[in-house]
Amino acid sequence: MPDQGEFKRDTNYIFDRITADGRDGWPVEPGRYRLVIARACPWANRASIVRRLLGLEEALSMGLCGPTHDERSWTFDLDPGGRDPVLGIERLQEAFFARYPDYPRGITVPSIVDVPSGQVVTNDFKQITVDLSLEWGAYHRDGAPELYPERLRDEIEDVAEKVFRDVNNGVYKAGFATSQEAYEEAYRALFSRLDWLSERLAGQRYLVGDTITEADVRLFTTLVRFDAVYHGHFKCNRQKLTEMPVLWAYARDLFQTPGFGDTIDFGQIKEHYYVVHRNVNPTGIVPLGPELAGWLTPHGREELGGRPFGDGTPPGPPPAGERVPELGR
Amino acid sequence: MPDQGEFKRDTNYIFDRITADGRDGWPVEPGRYRLVIARACPWANRASIVRRLLGLEEALSMGLCGPTHDERSWTFDLDPGGRDPVLGIERLQEAFFARYPDYPRGITVPSIVDVPSGQVVTNDFKQITVDLSLEWGAYHRDGAPELYPERLRDEIEDVAEKVFRDVNNGVYKAGFATSQEAYEEAYRALFSRLDWLSERLAGQRYLVGDTITEADVRLFTTLVRFDAVYHGHFKCNRQKLTEMPVLWAYARDLFQTPGFGDTIDFGQIKEHYYVVHRNVNPTGIVPLGPELAGWLTPHGREELGGRPFGDGTPPGPPPAGERVPELGR
Repeated sequence: MPDQGEFKRDTNYIFDRITADGRDGWPVEPGRYRLVIARACPWANRASIVRRLLGLEEALSMGLCGPTHDERSWTFDLDPGGRDPVLGIERLQEAFFARYPDYPRGITVPSIVDVPSGQVVTNDFKQITVDLSLEWGAYHRDGAPELYPERLRDEIEDVAEKVFRDVNNGVYKAGFATSQEAYEEAYRALFSRLDWLSERLAGQRYLVGDTITEADVRLFTTLVRFDAVYHGHFKCNRQKLTEMPVLWAYARDLFQTPGFGDTIDFGQIKEHYYVVHRNVNPTGIVPLGPELAGWLTPHGREELGGRPFGDGTPPGPPPAGERVPELGR
Repeated sequence: MPDQGEFKRDTNYIFDRITADGRDGWPVEPGRYRLVIARACPWANRASIVRRLLGLEEALSMGLCGPTHDERSWTFDLDPGGRDPVLGIERLQEAFFARYPDYPRGITVPSIVDVPSGQVVTNDFKQITVDLSLEWGAYHRDGAPELYPERLRDEIEDVAEKVFRDVNNGVYKAGFATSQEAYEEAYRALFSRLDWLSERLAGQRYLVGDTITEADVRLFTTLVRFDAVYHGHFKCNRQKLTEMPVLWAYARDLFQTPGFGDTIDFGQIKEHYYVVHRNVNPTGIVPLGPELAGWLTPHGREELGGRPFGDGTPPGPPPAGERVPELGR
C-alpha cells in the first residue's frame, strides 16, 4: 500500500483497441474475439451490460470466470472441467501470458481475447465499452441504443470522471484504506458525490440527456453492489442505497431495464468480495443479507419522462447460456 | 474456538451477590461499592440503565472503562492519569486479582467492586440488574419503577431467555462464527426471533406487561447497537433496524425514555467493536456511519397505551460526570 494508507488503483492496462479499420492490428470481426468477464466484477459488468444493450451476443462471445480466485487471479472454474469451452484455458492468466510471457501486472476482467491466437488484446475496461458502441456498429442489433452519442460525449465523460473518482473507485478507496484518515476522506467524497447525483437525478430520469448512456452504465454497476457489498464490507455506511430515495429509484429503474438486471448475479458478487478480500474479511464468511426483493418493486421514474432506448428498442432476453439466477433464488 | 466454528460464551462468572441481608458477606451499603462499566458493552449497559431508572447514582457510584482494550482487557484510560478516581487502579484486572490472585477467566464488565478492599464482588451481569431491583430497594429514588415485579417474573425470564439466546448473544454467534454454517444458523435464529419480537410488539408497547421491565432493558441494549455495529461488523444484515418498523419504533421509544438513551455513547460503541475485534476487522478502521439523527424522531408508540414507569416517574437527568455526548456530536 502507498503512503497515507490510501488505495491506489493500477490503471496501466493493455491499451490495444479492436477497431473497424483494424489500425492496431485487431479488426472488428464477428466470432473472432471472446469477451471474458466475471459476474462479480463491476468493471467487467460495464462490458456485459453494453454488449447486451447493443445486441452483440452473437458477434462477440462471452466467457465467464468464477467469483473467487487466488493470487493467480481469475479462473474458469464455473465451466465443465474448469476450462473455458472456447479458449480451452483454465486461468485467464494464460491468455495474458500468451500475449506477453512475462506480463507483470494484474490479470483483470474485462478482457477481450483473440480466439485464434489465444492472446489478450485488451483489458482497458474504459475503452472497451466505448469501442463496443463506436467500432462494432456493423454488428449492433436492430434498435440498439446510442450509448455514446457524439453530441453528449463531453458531458458523459465529465460526469463519468466524477463518478469514477468518488463512486466507482471511491468505494474501493474507502474499503481498502489502511488508515482512518484515508478511509474518512474516501467516505466523505463518496457520499458528497452521491448527494450530488441524487440532486441531479431528482428531476431527470438519466444522468446525461434523456436516454440511457455510458454514464448510466458506469454508475449502475456500483449502485447495484452497494447494499450487498460496499455498505458493510467497505464501510460505506452513511446510508444503504435503499435509504437514498432518488438513487434507489434510479437504480431500480435501470435494474428493471432489459440489459441491466439480467447481467447481475448477487450471489457471485457477494462471494467474490467476501471470500477474496481476506485482508478485509479474514473468515471469508459471506453474509446472507440483504434482502433483494426490493429491486423488483415499482420505481415511479417513468413520470420523469425520458426514453430509455431513444429511437431504439429494448434488447430481447439473454441467450440461454448467459442467464443469471432470478432474484430470490 | 470450539468445533463447528461456533462461538461459545464463557458464562462462568463470579456469582457472589450483594444483598440486603448480606448473606454472601456483601451487604447493601450506600457508598461502599463501585459499579464498573464500559459505555461500549451491551452487558454492562443493562446495569447502567437499571441504575439510572432506579435512581441509584448516589448509592452506587460508577466507574467508566474506555472503549478499547488490549488482551489484558478493560482499562480506565478515560480518567485523568488513566486511573479510576475512586478505586485508584489502571486496569479492571487489578480488582479481579485483588480478589483472586490467579483469576483465570475473562475480565468483564459490568463488575461491582468493594471499594474498601478493592476486590471484585461480582461480574454476573444477569444477576446484577435483578439485585439492583430487588436488594437495593431501600436506596431507590422516589418514583422508581418496578422493573422485575414478582407477578411478571416468569414471563420476563421466558422472553429474556429467548432474547438472550437468539438476539443478545445471537449477534455475537453470527459475528464470531468461523464457519459459514455456524454463521448462517445464528443469522437465521436472530432474524426469526426479531420477526417474533416484531409481531409481539406490534400491538403492545413493552415486551411484558404495560410498563418497562427488565425484559425491555435486555432487548434494548442489543437493538441500540444494531445498525452501528451488528449489521455490518457482525454481518447481521438482512435488514437494518431502521428497516424493521415495529422494532425501530420500539427502540426509539425506549431511547427517548430517560434512563435509556442517556446511557448510550455511539462513538464508544463503534470504537470498541471495530478496534478491539481485529479478527473481524483487521485494519481497526471505525466506520463513519450510520447517520443517527433518526433516533430522535417521533415513534408514535404512545398510541399503544402503556405507562412506561407504571405508578412511578421518569428519572431526572444524569449526574454531571456521567453525561454522554449528544447525538450528532
